[in-house]
Amino acid sequence: MADEDRVRLVEVGPRDGLQNEKVEVSTETKIALIDRLAAAGFAAVEAGSFVSPKWVPQMADSADVYRGIDRVPGVAYPVLTPNLKGFEAAMAVGAEEVAIFGAASESFSRRNINCSIAESLDRFRPVCEAAADRGVRVRGYISCVLGCPYEGRIDPAAVAEVAAALRAMGCYEISLGDTIGTGTPRETASMLDAVAAVVPVAALAGHFHDTYGQALANIWAAYDHGVRTFDCSVAGLGGCPYAKGASGNVASEDVVYSLGRSGIDTGVDLDRLMVASRFISDRLEREPASRVARALASRAL
Amino acid sequence: MADEDRVRLVEVGPRDGLQNEKVEVSTETKIALIDRLAAAGFAAVEAGSFVSPKWVPQMADSADVYRGIDRVPGVAYPVLTPNLKGFEAAMAVGAEEVAIFGAASESFSRRNINCSIAESLDRFRPVCEAAADRGVRVRGYISCVLGCPYEGRIDPAAVAEVAAALRAMGCYEISLGDTIGTGTPRETASMLDAVAAVVPVAALAGHFHDTYGQALANIWAAYDHGVRTFDCSVAGLGGCPYAKGASGNVASEDVVYSLGRSGIDTGVDLDRLMVASRFISDRLEREPASRVARALASRAL
Repeated sequence: MADEDRVRLVEVGPRDGLQNEKVEVSTETKIALIDRLAAAGFAAVEAGSFVSPKWVPQMADSADVYRGIDRVPGVAYPVLTPNLKGFEAAMAVGAEEVAIFGAASESFSRRNINCSIAESLDRFRPVCEAAADRGVRVRGYISCVLGCPYEGRIDPAAVAEVAAALRAMGCYEISLGDTIGTGTPRETASMLDAVAAVVPVAALAGHFHDTYGQALANIWAAYDHGVRTFDCSVAGLGGCPYAKGASGNVASEDVVYSLGRSGIDTGVDLDRLMVASRFISDRLEREPASRVARALASRAL
Repeated sequence: MADEDRVRLVEVGPRDGLQNEKVEVSTETKIALIDRLAAAGFAAVEAGSFVSPKWVPQMADSADVYRGIDRVPGVAYPVLTPNLKGFEAAMAVGAEEVAIFGAASESFSRRNINCSIAESLDRFRPVCEAAADRGVRVRGYISCVLGCPYEGRIDPAAVAEVAAALRAMGCYEISLGDTIGTGTPRETASMLDAVAAVVPVAALAGHFHDTYGQALANIWAAYDHGVRTFDCSVAGLGGCPYAKGASGNVASEDVVYSLGRSGIDTGVDLDRLMVASRFISDRLEREPASRVARALASRAL
């Protein structure tokens, strides 16, 4: 296989996933989940969030989680640090990669992080500078790249503008998130055309939600456009298909299966991933929100 | 929009779907479902199966169903007719299109219809000849085009051979079915490369199951390979995601949403399709097996 066919997968279940679950999960369970995901072969496992516990109580134990994991050499464990205070807390536990979180929709930015897009970028800049001083890598997220719950469709030019700003302040990678999952393959392609004109495609990642069942088709559309990094969430953590209004991160199992069986190396072992999937599904006392996980479980009976 | 971008959708829920559901559905409900689907704008609605009620008791009322529907001009209502006896029964109620059902896997053919692939083709030939005499169109199905429960992966050359045979005996269209849903976009592309070498791509249809969550990605891969006809099933009838071992026809709502929002005309109105989806889901007393249907229902609350 040619190197350019390889895909790098970022497992976001322990942070983006669990943050959006209703059930409380213990620090020990989070640590065990992260270690199982690293063992499965992910290039990166999102390990926590250093934000005010007032806003995100589910991630209040991120320092303890980070200290508890068995860090595997070669695996990145990014943590969210929306401001300098969070960044310093992440440094105190030895984090080597951090992430910042912007939006392509002005309305979503105001409602979600209570400031304009421009103001959010002003807040991120000192984090990026501090990270550069310490040799810490910064990943940039952009939400609502294909749709916004308040504004509907989003102009690809707006996504490109935020992506360029994050890139300019030093983000090594920009993860493009279809937060509400309404995007389709052709919209994905149009958005990527605009963003890749200002940021090299090798610095872009796709972050798709399966709320409308489009995630995997969008991943393939992005792959065909040259994107080689994708975010995914074990057992579809962060959105349950049985619940109304599920947010619906694409399930890692579905992505690993689709790419792997198509002959594209992700480095992730599906059997080991299934161990992590069963582990967290058992703890949450529910079926995994992954068609592959459910199909494989059914075959094993 | 250019004509070559248009997609023709064949709604298979009332036959392929209901045949694989555990719940008994009344003749009146089948008729009402078919009429709602025709009203939604499908190019074709599969209306029944003229086989021995000993083998498929769910379709024993196909003659009554066919007589009961309000046939919309321009909409095709194909019915399955595996042999001359079934064909004559279909003619007796005025059917104008019939379908025959072969397999690309020798083991599946033997276990499913109790004869070899070659024997099944011999049985279909007189049906095709009788249909040609009457000016009746014949659609050919091939199952297991990307995988077989007994043989695993299927050689694309085996699919091409059956497709060429069905085409040679007069089928105007060959529907290529990933019966167990294990296929991925790259496998879809390889299979289509082989089949399109012996049958014009304009005479091919894609029939994908969502058991492993790959159906929509496979539809887009087939679309990129020139296929412009796809089978789909309202509310994902024929496979329930909550059940173990679901067969999982791709949900029509997910296909109509993905193509429509991407600017590709299918002729199907999503709102009217949702009427049919809610109708049959209420009768079956379950949630639709469609992410789009569930997401839209959640938004409407």
